[in-house]
Amino acid sequence: MENRYCVIMCGGVGSRFWPFSKTAVPKQFLDFFGTGRTLLQMTYDRISSIIPARNILALTNERYAPLVKQQLPDLDDEQILLEPDRRNTAPCIAWSAYHIRAFNPDALILVTPSDHLILKDEEFRNSVVRGFEFVRDNRSALLTMGIKPNRPETGYGYIQVGGKSLDSIAPVKTFTEKPNIELAKVFLESGEFVWNAGIFMWSANAIIDAFHECAPDISMRFDKGLGKFGTDKETEFIKREFPACPNISVDFAVMEKYKDVHVQCVDIGWSDLGSWGAFYEKSPKTENGNVFRNCKTVINDCQNNIFAAKKEKLIVASGLKDYIVADNDDILLICPLSEEQKIKQYVNEVKANFGDKYL
Amino acid sequence: MENRYCVIMCGGVGSRFWPFSKTAVPKQFLDFFGTGRTLLQMTYDRISSIIPARNILALTNERYAPLVKQQLPDLDDEQILLEPDRRNTAPCIAWSAYHIRAFNPDALILVTPSDHLILKDEEFRNSVVRGFEFVRDNRSALLTMGIKPNRPETGYGYIQVGGKSLDSIAPVKTFTEKPNIELAKVFLESGEFVWNAGIFMWSANAIIDAFHECAPDISMRFDKGLGKFGTDKETEFIKREFPACPNISVDFAVMEKYKDVHVQCVDIGWSDLGSWGAFYEKSPKTENGNVFRNCKTVINDCQNNIFAAKKEKLIVASGLKDYIVADNDDILLICPLSEEQKIKQYVNEVKANFGDKYL
Repeated sequence: MENRYCVIMCGGVGSRFWPFSKTAVPKQFLDFFGTGRTLLQMTYDRISSIIPARNILALTNERYAPLVKQQLPDLDDEQILLEPDRRNTAPCIAWSAYHIRAFNPDALILVTPSDHLILKDEEFRNSVVRGFEFVRDNRSALLTMGIKPNRPETGYGYIQVGGKSLDSIAPVKTFTEKPNIELAKVFLESGEFVWNAGIFMWSANAIIDAFHECAPDISMRFDKGLGKFGTDKETEFIKREFPACPNISVDFAVMEKYKDVHVQCVDIGWSDLGSWGAFYEKSPKTENGNVFRNCKTVINDCQNNIFAAKKEKLIVASGLKDYIVADNDDILLICPLSEEQKIKQYVNEVKANFGDKYL
Repeated sequence: MENRYCVIMCGGVGSRFWPFSKTAVPKQFLDFFGTGRTLLQMTYDRISSIIPARNILALTNERYAPLVKQQLPDLDDEQILLEPDRRNTAPCIAWSAYHIRAFNPDALILVTPSDHLILKDEEFRNSVVRGFEFVRDNRSALLTMGIKPNRPETGYGYIQVGGKSLDSIAPVKTFTEKPNIELAKVFLESGEFVWNAGIFMWSANAIIDAFHECAPDISMRFDKGLGKFGTDKETEFIKREFPACPNISVDFAVMEKYKDVHVQCVDIGWSDLGSWGAFYEKSPKTENGNVFRNCKTVINDCQNNIFAAKKEKLIVASGLKDYIVADNDDILLICPLSEEQKIKQYVNEVKANFGDKYL
């Protein structure tokens, strides 16, 4: 148990959920379902019974430090690693491994996003415990969690599973980035592919070795800091070296290249909540198919909409079908659910017309 | 000139424009068109050049006294008459006449709502000046302004004009309350009917005489206060007697019964702004037929909507046609323009579910 660590990545900006998720308060810091706990807090709650509290780290951008401290008051300041700059997942994952190894060379690490939804907590914990055993017993292995696809989703990365069965931990055959719809359908029908959930497990040594092998431009930088991790010289070192790292995901930099990558296929009720459509799908609905997030409503003749607002907001609506209605203080978004991919374009228009004020 | 008085009625609650107009800040106190002046201020501005400043009175409910003082800083406290209770227009109009007559027995009074729109200010002022002359020369006459109808509106009262022409001041033949659509069409086609704008002119003596003749239950109460109007005993007197008056409009109580009622048919670009439809009609539109009130917008594929919000609110909308989108702090209303008559029903549902908080 004392070798188990968790790195919660919570530095993303979550632009796809605008106007709910804004740069100042991205998605992971929101009480997304109105339950009283934010996605970050739900992430913490999910693993706190199987990982020692002092071994849980939050990895975030400097600007979100106050939010993390406020939402995870159990964490000491030393448990919050602050990235001085955005460099995607590879550099921050490397840093977390060097940092943790300085305290415990036998560390086994779970790396998890903080803005996903996992409905089956118990199954998730069982999978994590099993994964810890696997990476303890297979010291060079990197392990990722794979989700059985239920639709030809084009927004996710896919993993082709080697070996015979999807029911156990198996070697990865190939990684495939977001496919087009035809390819996604082939993947789905083949039964050989799972979604890449971006939840990783490894020993500190394995991932550092993998960086040396696949991304030496990154490990080279962190090797310069050996002896500084876990000391009062770490912050200054990171401030200098971190921004010099390449901006690259751990999938591209390491997972797709490394020799010993495994996937554990899990059924944990997962959604990356990467879109309003995903949110709609995972949310409880009224008999008319409406989803209400955190608002008081008086609704007449409305079907299959999302109404999302802040707690005391009253929404009175009539005659709407298949719309997103999202109100967040100074912004109101109303658009057909089928056009949610255009939200990014609207955000660009907003930026062009009004600057950063509403982002 | 010094005999000219104006009574601005600004005590209404404006429920039809919910959620813009709320009990706390009704429609007349709103900068409705985002011009920087509220409807009340526009009412004041419209008449201030033809009526001495000290002769302009605001008649409102006690709770709105701070709003009136703030919006009409030129008025002294004595120029603001505070109704201790809501009693529709007859009692407050009677009070205003008794009050003004105590200062000037030759007073000629214009009584005007404060929440209407008048686009042709100059024509309005010309009509008022002409009306003052008429009620000066016809000491027992009550005069009302009539608007030539342009549609078979069922929301207004109609006045059948006696005499030959609609172009001058003529005796009133009949008053008709809100007609059904068939009757409204007949009225429109006949050319004999005008809309009752609720803008009245009379001498103080004429209206007091008319109350004695048609509504003695009201004049009886105010006669008890003779000698107190215009003194420091008036407030106490009104607090006691006003709430005992019947709750009735001046149209019902006096205009429809009195012998000497005239109508001046005017073309002043009038709207009572009694509905979102009226607001839509009177507002400038984009080439797609959208009306924007006071909001920043990024709009795609939207036609013939009203988007109404507060100044810094950003509305991003797509795929809406013929809707009202009205956002006011803690309330968002979205409904088809064709269903605006249901807003009252929605407000009742809101009240049933959430109490007075959102009213």
